[in-house]
Amino acid sequence: MKTTIIGLGLIGGSLAKDLRKSRFATEITGVETNPAHTGQALELGLVDRIAPLEEAVKDTDLVIIAIPVDKEIEILPVILDNIGPGTTVTDMSSTKYEIIESVKNHKRRRNFVPAHPMSGTENSGPTAALEDLFRNKITIICDHADTGPQHLALVEKMFQTLGMNIAYMSADEQDHSTAYVSHLPHAAAFALANAVQDKEDRSIIFDLASGGFRSTVRLAKSSSTMWHPIFQQNRKYVVESLDVYIKHLHEFRDCLFNHDDNKLHELILNANKIRSILESENPHLVKNEEKLVKLYTK
Amino acid sequence: MKTTIIGLGLIGGSLAKDLRKSRFATEITGVETNPAHTGQALELGLVDRIAPLEEAVKDTDLVIIAIPVDKEIEILPVILDNIGPGTTVTDMSSTKYEIIESVKNHKRRRNFVPAHPMSGTENSGPTAALEDLFRNKITIICDHADTGPQHLALVEKMFQTLGMNIAYMSADEQDHSTAYVSHLPHAAAFALANAVQDKEDRSIIFDLASGGFRSTVRLAKSSSTMWHPIFQQNRKYVVESLDVYIKHLHEFRDCLFNHDDNKLHELILNANKIRSILESENPHLVKNEEKLVKLYTK
Repeated sequence: MKTTIIGLGLIGGSLAKDLRKSRFATEITGVETNPAHTGQALELGLVDRIAPLEEAVKDTDLVIIAIPVDKEIEILPVILDNIGPGTTVTDMSSTKYEIIESVKNHKRRRNFVPAHPMSGTENSGPTAALEDLFRNKITIICDHADTGPQHLALVEKMFQTLGMNIAYMSADEQDHSTAYVSHLPHAAAFALANAVQDKEDRSIIFDLASGGFRSTVRLAKSSSTMWHPIFQQNRKYVVESLDVYIKHLHEFRDCLFNHDDNKLHELILNANKIRSILESENPHLVKNEEKLVKLYTK
Repeated sequence: MKTTIIGLGLIGGSLAKDLRKSRFATEITGVETNPAHTGQALELGLVDRIAPLEEAVKDTDLVIIAIPVDKEIEILPVILDNIGPGTTVTDMSSTKYEIIESVKNHKRRRNFVPAHPMSGTENSGPTAALEDLFRNKITIICDHADTGPQHLALVEKMFQTLGMNIAYMSADEQDHSTAYVSHLPHAAAFALANAVQDKEDRSIIFDLASGGFRSTVRLAKSSSTMWHPIFQQNRKYVVESLDVYIKHLHEFRDCLFNHDDNKLHELILNANKIRSILESENPHLVKNEEKLVKLYTK
């Protein structure tokens, strides 16, 4: 199948590896504006050729968009303008509502399958691409009733090929949930990195940083090019989640400051419950689409 | 060498493994009040025997205290009361100032080497014990001028046997730095776990939790028995670090809320600098004691 991948960074590059290996994609065209990334992607064999956007989407079966959300919102209408009636378009980005809104009246809206695979690392660029990055992870498909059934089926098949489980949600609900489980942890890590650098001599952090500090602050390494636009597009829910988080931090701080030991103990025990959520090896994800729609759609 | 380990959890158990394997300890006596842990420690061969506290510290070369800081502050004077003049006592706990204060006028104060190895996991108990938990990590020795040189030398030799680098600080400075690089990340993770559980349906977190969420919230699994007393003993600096963190979160939140894009971009770029701090494979730690004293002591 002819596949076009727009953006050959961590996500686009990892997709290229898995889709080629599984023979889901037999011919991969890449679109990439960064000349260094273009060279690396060809050298690593991620794509067969590089082409300009309009040409790359004109005569292809599947277009996958894997670029920062501010760039995506600019070029998604251009892509839909240039594809034929049979081409499927999907995306990989962390925000969905504004992106879908931007093309809601486009005549090719039903060719578009808005998606968000919940996987990544804090690294970027084609050299960061990994095989099996998506295996056993979850992907969200949004507002699937607004997509043509053939286009939906093809993208579902692609995610199944990658080894992913699929959840179906409204775009609003995906942006709300993702604010809490992904965008807030990133904002918390950025602020923690700034707080610690604000206070401590760098060489002391460097020497004392234990495993706990490293894991908590890991996401603070994430690229601004990708994350700044995510925060902007999901502003409402990220601000809401930050307000909830700051409220909980204040509560913790005040219990400690006021020697309210019983309450502090309770807060820690409640936080500990996250263990049972995180440690299950086999997510209880319901794979039947109807049930998922019930589970996740208001 | 006869060694007594008080507390056979993650830290005490891991010490027992490494000290026995390296033959630093030839005979290990354990003190443990939890009957389940006693059985596990004997079964795992971590210790040769279990004895009551007074008996276990009476005729031994080295006593290592590896219990929660509230328990330690209760029994440290009892230990110093019961040892002979030649016995060395050290500890492994995350707070130092209040513990040292509690025995500052004890006649055996110079037998005590206050220490804090910066290593651990979010798990606890003898079955969580790991070989090589301490290798290539840093340990802090506090107020070393108040310790007799032979006792200091023995504990330094023990940490070198474990493969650790040693930093020398005042107890106040260790508590201040540790608040930022260890206690604050734990408080931040506890509050994040509570914020996310407050908002979202558990099954949604369960399914959507990606690697980023998991790493940021990992420390929220840490045991209350250990962490609650740490927060209490280091109350002043943990509250200070939480205030600094909350200030940075507010700044981030306000930039986003007020569409202050330039400032938000700056905040993310500044946070990204943590990458260079965390990614060095070879900490530039100065191993010469004199230089470390200069580096770390005010």
